[in-house]
Amino acid sequence: MHNHVKITYCTQCRWMLRAAWMGQELLTTFEEELEELSLCPGTGGIFEVEANGQLIWSRKEKGRFPEITELKQLVRDVIAPEKPLGHADRKIHGQ
Amino acid sequence: MHNHVKITYCTQCRWMLRAAWMGQELLTTFEEELEELSLCPGTGGIFEVEANGQLIWSRKEKGRFPEITELKQLVRDVIAPEKPLGHADRKIHGQ
Repeated sequence: MHNHVKITYCTQCRWMLRAAWMGQELLTTFEEELEELSLCPGTGGIFEVEANGQLIWSRKEKGRFPEITELKQLVRDVIAPEKPLGHADRKIHGQ
Repeated sequence: MHNHVKITYCTQCRWMLRAAWMGQELLTTFEEELEELSLCPGTGGIFEVEANGQLIWSRKEKGRFPEITELKQLVRDVIAPEKPLGHADRKIHGQ
């Protein structure tokens, strides 16, 4: 399985740095599991994260950006369900 | 044409930050032309850049990393041959 995470971000909103930061966090946490991390410019307020083709975050749907811990759990659940995330696995507000 | 640049870097050599920096430079310079910029972890001293499937830089072949201006010209020649790069188009040593 070629584990691939794709982050699509809005260039008009200047969200590349945020997307690139999150991408580097995922490449660090999932250094063994992630084969490819893609950054894709978009427009119109888009900020979406896909893991192996599954949409795991949409800013339009959620009305906010993911916290990095939250995003790591969502990515883990798709690409490496057995992988413990240590402190990152503590409960996220209300989840 | 889905313009896609892929940077494969060695995690053992800690080259993710360098690869991510170059990726962000390319996403900035080619904001209109580049649909996808991928960062791919590898091992064994690999540092390679592909543009639309064409290998445009191999550290093993060249024995060094590309200068960012050099890399932008190589990417431009594949994904946007008509695009002027302004000062980045000045002669590169001996080219």
